[in-house]
Amino acid sequence: MLLAFMLGTGTSAVMAQAPNDLVEKQIFTTHDFATYNGQQIAEVNVGWEAYGELNAAKDNVILITHFFSGNSHAAGRYTAGDALPGYWDAIIGPGKAIDTNLYYVVSSDTLVNQEPYNPRVTTTGPATINPATGKPYALDFPVVTIRDFVNVQKALLDSLGIEKLHAVVGASMGSLQALDWAAAYPDFVERVISVIGAGAVDPWTIATLQQWANPIIADPNWNEGNYYDADAPTEGLRQALGMVTLQAMHPQMFNQLYANSSARETAPLHNIRENFSVVNQLNAAAAARTANADANHLLYLVRANQLFMAGFAEDLETGLRPVTARTLFLPASNDLLLQPYLAQEAYNTLRELGKDTYYEEIEGPWGHLDGVYMLEQKAALIRDFLATTGQ
Amino acid sequence: MLLAFMLGTGTSAVMAQAPNDLVEKQIFTTHDFATYNGQQIAEVNVGWEAYGELNAAKDNVILITHFFSGNSHAAGRYTAGDALPGYWDAIIGPGKAIDTNLYYVVSSDTLVNQEPYNPRVTTTGPATINPATGKPYALDFPVVTIRDFVNVQKALLDSLGIEKLHAVVGASMGSLQALDWAAAYPDFVERVISVIGAGAVDPWTIATLQQWANPIIADPNWNEGNYYDADAPTEGLRQALGMVTLQAMHPQMFNQLYANSSARETAPLHNIRENFSVVNQLNAAAAARTANADANHLLYLVRANQLFMAGFAEDLETGLRPVTARTLFLPASNDLLLQPYLAQEAYNTLRELGKDTYYEEIEGPWGHLDGVYMLEQKAALIRDFLATTGQ
Repeated sequence: MLLAFMLGTGTSAVMAQAPNDLVEKQIFTTHDFATYNGQQIAEVNVGWEAYGELNAAKDNVILITHFFSGNSHAAGRYTAGDALPGYWDAIIGPGKAIDTNLYYVVSSDTLVNQEPYNPRVTTTGPATINPATGKPYALDFPVVTIRDFVNVQKALLDSLGIEKLHAVVGASMGSLQALDWAAAYPDFVERVISVIGAGAVDPWTIATLQQWANPIIADPNWNEGNYYDADAPTEGLRQALGMVTLQAMHPQMFNQLYANSSARETAPLHNIRENFSVVNQLNAAAAARTANADANHLLYLVRANQLFMAGFAEDLETGLRPVTARTLFLPASNDLLLQPYLAQEAYNTLRELGKDTYYEEIEGPWGHLDGVYMLEQKAALIRDFLATTGQ
Repeated sequence: MLLAFMLGTGTSAVMAQAPNDLVEKQIFTTHDFATYNGQQIAEVNVGWEAYGELNAAKDNVILITHFFSGNSHAAGRYTAGDALPGYWDAIIGPGKAIDTNLYYVVSSDTLVNQEPYNPRVTTTGPATINPATGKPYALDFPVVTIRDFVNVQKALLDSLGIEKLHAVVGASMGSLQALDWAAAYPDFVERVISVIGAGAVDPWTIATLQQWANPIIADPNWNEGNYYDADAPTEGLRQALGMVTLQAMHPQMFNQLYANSSARETAPLHNIRENFSVVNQLNAAAAARTANADANHLLYLVRANQLFMAGFAEDLETGLRPVTARTLFLPASNDLLLQPYLAQEAYNTLRELGKDTYYEEIEGPWGHLDGVYMLEQKAALIRDFLATTGQ
């Protein structure tokens, strides 16, 4: 997230006991991956990284699942000179809420990651070369779901000989993966922390996500997804990324960040072609982000989120019935994108099923992004939740 | 609003004492209109209508100012066979909260109304023929502001010999006009009711409104606004209108209306080119609305709203200082578009200035649209507020 610099690690109240070791990105490869919708992907590559040490019993593993615009870089730094650490560095590290002195923390890039051109991301999606044709898949890439993201992670953990997850923890799209893990592999998952999440996507959220796809589809350069040997639909992608940034924020923080813009600016008063300063700033930030991003990948990410219902059954209750994990829901009170009612629905469903589940709201000025920037306020709760034992 | 049929007049708890007379649309014309930004419009035409009787003293006038997607049809029917009455018919009429047995209620179309091709709307804007060229103004039309909307209404009232407004009442963009009326013409305005409104537009709202302009500007048919003798940017306009509909609603009602759509639909699971049912329904509704709408008009409407600060002074406090009207703010608790903090800011500013001002929230499942569909719950409050006397 571009905004990470705004808070950086300055908010860290829990001091690390020792600096994190440098993080190393690794690549996991699997072949003939069967997708949830019944298709196959000849070769899947995803990046992953880990913090802490895997114990001999291989039972101290916590999986971190990333959000829509994110990637596997959840904590630490790749080089001592990195300007910023991973997005949840305030809660992942030695002595922190997710204590890497105790846990082996694994985080992987998803399929169809938004940024296939980010040198620190490895992902497989429409921009990947299709071995059958020697050209990018484009729209021949199968529609993938959050369940597919989970299944790639399962294959990665299998390859490491890991047979149990102490916990799965994710924010936003990461929370969808975390909860679906517990539904898909109940014997594997002991705890789930769903941050700014949902149990199932509702029509309002489907329609809201579609807003991010529309400008790409409308861009003439998109050309039904076939733009890899021509000009990319950069303008549509920029519009989409600008909406993601705006809609993930509450006015409270947004108005602080753009306090230099106002209704009384004179350029837009005198010329319909001129924009307000806030619009120019958002446009420039989004334009910068297009460099690492791929328009088709964003479409596939939107679709994966739109198709989400934990457990992928006929309804949420049926989907969540197999869950044996203890679950903790942490929505953000000011979230305008995945409002707390969505986490409440999953929590209530689990309660009615007699499961061990907890719910608490994050307070903050960021809105949806409080789940990324303000989660440290729940550090003690997370630490305690991870320390619980027994079913 | 297309959605009006969903509640219709069925929510009317206050029964009309007698059916409204049929409403007649009239046209007001003024020449050499000086805009706030220092330009001129050779001829302005706007539609207007009225309900009730103007008394001899001409001091029983209530002005209704319309919202973004609305027009002057606030109450009553044009013909006995009209499917729907005006949008606030539940609160305007004989014996209703705004009692046409007592008041002469006037409502006019704004400049740059979204629907210049609606046969019931008369407006002046970029789609109007520029007498200097014999062609539509397109982007040669001056940028206009909420103050210009107010000044056209002032000219209309002047032409009727009206020198005092018992009240100005408006929802959303209408609330901006209502409050600016009190700031611009303090001796003219005795009461203001600001429904789902704001005192000034903040950076978040400027950016949110810009989302509606972006797909039009990105549509190749838009052609810098010059499309009147070619294909119009209908796809961009459709996207914009779809966003207006979605963003004006809270998930609570949206999910009821589109309960037939779900994350578990199979067509979008198997084909990235297929849409969810809710998306198809929204697209179809928005496409139908493009017929009466003009893309440039929507751009100018967005701009007029983005430029709003009541009083058009260096800050809101200075702008509101001249106000002598008693003011009532009625934001909607669930509003996600113009959240209650915006009305609170105006209310608090007026209080600090020692003005006579009131604040109460509308409850409902619609979100922003609660100001249109659920206002009747404040009927007694509105009636009492209109009956207050003395400063």
